[in-house]
Amino acid sequence: MSDQAKFQAAQATIVRNERFIRIADGLKPELISEEVEPTQLVKVEADETAMHGWRAVRDAEIEWLGSRELGKGQSVIADFGDHRVGYVSFEIKPVGSPPDAPLKLRLTFGEMPVEMAVPFSSYDGWISSSWLQEETIFVDVLPGKVSLPRRYSFRYMKIEVLDTSPKYRVSFFNLKCATVTSADRTSVIPFAHADPLLRDIDRVSVKTLEDCMQDVFEDGPKRDRRLWLGDLRLQALANYATFRTDALVKRCLYLFAGVPDDRGQVSANLFIAPELIADDTYLFDYSLFFTVTLYDYYDATDDADTLTDLWPTARRQVELALERLDERGVVRDEPTWWSFIDWHESLNKQAPSHAVLIYALRRTIRLAEAVGCASAEEFERRLADAERAAMESLWDSEQSFFVSGEGRQVSWAAQIWMALAEVLPPDENRALMQRLLSAKPDIAPTTPYMYHHLVEALLVVGLKDEAVHLMKRYWGGMLKNGADTFWELYDPGNPDFSPYGSPLINSYCHAWSCTPTYLIRHYGL
Amino acid sequence: MSDQAKFQAAQATIVRNERFIRIADGLKPELISEEVEPTQLVKVEADETAMHGWRAVRDAEIEWLGSRELGKGQSVIADFGDHRVGYVSFEIKPVGSPPDAPLKLRLTFGEMPVEMAVPFSSYDGWISSSWLQEETIFVDVLPGKVSLPRRYSFRYMKIEVLDTSPKYRVSFFNLKCATVTSADRTSVIPFAHADPLLRDIDRVSVKTLEDCMQDVFEDGPKRDRRLWLGDLRLQALANYATFRTDALVKRCLYLFAGVPDDRGQVSANLFIAPELIADDTYLFDYSLFFTVTLYDYYDATDDADTLTDLWPTARRQVELALERLDERGVVRDEPTWWSFIDWHESLNKQAPSHAVLIYALRRTIRLAEAVGCASAEEFERRLADAERAAMESLWDSEQSFFVSGEGRQVSWAAQIWMALAEVLPPDENRALMQRLLSAKPDIAPTTPYMYHHLVEALLVVGLKDEAVHLMKRYWGGMLKNGADTFWELYDPGNPDFSPYGSPLINSYCHAWSCTPTYLIRHYGL
Repeated sequence: MSDQAKFQAAQATIVRNERFIRIADGLKPELISEEVEPTQLVKVEADETAMHGWRAVRDAEIEWLGSRELGKGQSVIADFGDHRVGYVSFEIKPVGSPPDAPLKLRLTFGEMPVEMAVPFSSYDGWISSSWLQEETIFVDVLPGKVSLPRRYSFRYMKIEVLDTSPKYRVSFFNLKCATVTSADRTSVIPFAHADPLLRDIDRVSVKTLEDCMQDVFEDGPKRDRRLWLGDLRLQALANYATFRTDALVKRCLYLFAGVPDDRGQVSANLFIAPELIADDTYLFDYSLFFTVTLYDYYDATDDADTLTDLWPTARRQVELALERLDERGVVRDEPTWWSFIDWHESLNKQAPSHAVLIYALRRTIRLAEAVGCASAEEFERRLADAERAAMESLWDSEQSFFVSGEGRQVSWAAQIWMALAEVLPPDENRALMQRLLSAKPDIAPTTPYMYHHLVEALLVVGLKDEAVHLMKRYWGGMLKNGADTFWELYDPGNPDFSPYGSPLINSYCHAWSCTPTYLIRHYGL
Repeated sequence: MSDQAKFQAAQATIVRNERFIRIADGLKPELISEEVEPTQLVKVEADETAMHGWRAVRDAEIEWLGSRELGKGQSVIADFGDHRVGYVSFEIKPVGSPPDAPLKLRLTFGEMPVEMAVPFSSYDGWISSSWLQEETIFVDVLPGKVSLPRRYSFRYMKIEVLDTSPKYRVSFFNLKCATVTSADRTSVIPFAHADPLLRDIDRVSVKTLEDCMQDVFEDGPKRDRRLWLGDLRLQALANYATFRTDALVKRCLYLFAGVPDDRGQVSANLFIAPELIADDTYLFDYSLFFTVTLYDYYDATDDADTLTDLWPTARRQVELALERLDERGVVRDEPTWWSFIDWHESLNKQAPSHAVLIYALRRTIRLAEAVGCASAEEFERRLADAERAAMESLWDSEQSFFVSGEGRQVSWAAQIWMALAEVLPPDENRALMQRLLSAKPDIAPTTPYMYHHLVEALLVVGLKDEAVHLMKRYWGGMLKNGADTFWELYDPGNPDFSPYGSPLINSYCHAWSCTPTYLIRHYGL
């Protein structure tokens, strides 16, 4: 998810549940750190066939770094060999006369070659340039060691000597990154697959999840470094198939439940530092995913205590969503950013949001039954109503597609979510997805997040070959384009796509892209 | 002094004297810290009549700082009321939605309004831009406290918000500077004077010295932050009249004596951190000032132990200088930067350097006598030879001026140093200075360093009124132009003068300008 917030609660009043917050604090993970060194020096070359038009090519062995003497205006790019999240340090030795002026350096960290090639000063997108990972630092005392206090998410690091003095140059030594993650790589459930591409996709999925697992499940370690419900739900699914760090899922659920608003709604995302704060962004689908994530957690862990504790919060999200139904029993549409679904300017959110409600209702009923709550019956009725309303008001029998909003938009998202919600009988559900693949409506998925739901919908309706084919094409496409971790955004037809105005600011290690490992392992692909 | 080094020893071999270095380490001062807050907010306005064309004018009371909410592109300038050297900290509170992107700030520190007005990116001078006091920082967690690790020398501090996010702005609180100095203000010898301008000049001289007194006597706390012999000699003189932190003079003498080259010559300047290093710049006049500074120190303290310890080093500087005499007995000229004397592109250094040698020889003889060294007699002979050579080869009886170099240049510097060296009998010495003031040769003083020697020469020859008049015009001129501390460079006819290509990089608190307190108090002006 991103930090766009066209829709914000004007003045949300937060009702803190201190007990929940204490439980979450008690589950705060110890971060695992590992020291890694760069593997080579690279240069970045323009190449029309490469992602964003830039390719990193070998410049020299990493051993050469210490022997290079850099003066004003010179630079070097270290390649850390894979995606890294952590803290960087290095040593600097002066060469020539004693350093008679401070050393001024610019350090640029990039997940992709484009970040090494295109000056960040050219960025003019609408979200904050402060996400671009660049530092200008002065070193007053040489020789010296620089330990950068901020965490970076990167594979490439450019060191530029902005100024020294006419009397000395500098060399760099012991460049290192102390990586951090709360994921224990040694605990990953072993996995073998005959298909090397699926093995690669699984491996990079796991790496993506690993690098997003920090103090909480972050959406992206470069940007926004934050706990979003939509990402959490998918990370949790991938986690159950790999690391089984289930306590981190529990922690995140308690964090969300710790700071609902005065109506009981959980926020779309949380800030953790310097203290727990609920963002003032509330999203229809994301709030429902609290309930869905609790369902998946209980399904994976049988942790009845947590279920009992968090059930009232989970139930409340569904009650609030139901309040949004109009006289026809359909989720009320709105022109603003009230439900996320996908990054698509023209996507109408009504039908897919209604489907998310149905999807959540099914799971809520099972949770209610598990905790022995009488509301199960009521939710059964509401589910039947919602399904009927979907068929009466959102199903277009002439087109044989679900339509959304006043404009009766036929989108991929609406069909995908209705399929996941299993509104139609199994045969018709499968036919819906087959029709979708062949009709290819214009309003298509734009993000790996939506592609995940497309693949899972194909699996749910039994179109396994199509699901595998699509996964190989989409996530495999990222691999072909040099992905070390899976990206926030990937549009095969438009590699420079960014909803923010520049690919420089996109996140190239993003939680919502980590799901193939779940899809492959859970569905036995 | 500055960090230009057109003349460098190709490969100096340093012979460390570990005992001297240990003694110097044992004299390392405790820094005194005081917490100061800004006094007002200012803006900088173009004003042709102001120094550099810029004037700081009141914008608001400092209490307003915390109530200002700054968004992207907005800035504020805090005025700390006087020149400060120290460590800055402040707190930041976000306003609006929770901060959903890092805060990016640019912090600019300036001793003068021009540094707040002219972008540092415009600097294109020949010494390192890394001296310009500017930081670009990111703050990931808000609210938060920023404690900048580097020391700054400034009166004004500009805070610019380079980026936040569309969702929040920021306010700044508790902006402070923890000043540092090894000078104890409470120990300053009290001083009263009927003339308010001389009182002001004395006060600002003392403040200049105070801010340059750190771990060692620095030349300038903004630039070069380093121990230079030429500055040390003058700081020591000012110190004897004010703070009497004589142990710091002793420390600096032992530092220089601790790292001579293999011929025994002391360097023109030293680096202290991360370890003691002699710079590879050697200057004829500066090395002789080691001996002169030891003479002044002994004169002020009667510290016979230190004299005995350092006498061999002091004597060696004079011996090495004497080796430079040519067949006529005159200091050999050279086109490169072999002797400093003054910042002047066209100044020939031969005659003033020869005068510095005579000046030093006189004091060396007295030191030799004090330690009971037989070399006193030999130095007496060499002094007589050097004086005779000056009159035979450098005195132009037609012009009644000393001339310098092949071009027989008549400079102020040559006459001033010959007057200080007392080569002529007293009456003729006075007549020389009177002739100088009336003839005004083209090759004039450019720095406060040379102006100091001009004023002292006038005092030595008994032209007290002219000395006071000149001091009031020159140092008083800096005061009229807004000096909080005295500057490295001041040319009344050319306020933008910088030998480095831009007044942005000049130092506005510079040791060699602090001498009026010595001149006023020592000569009873």
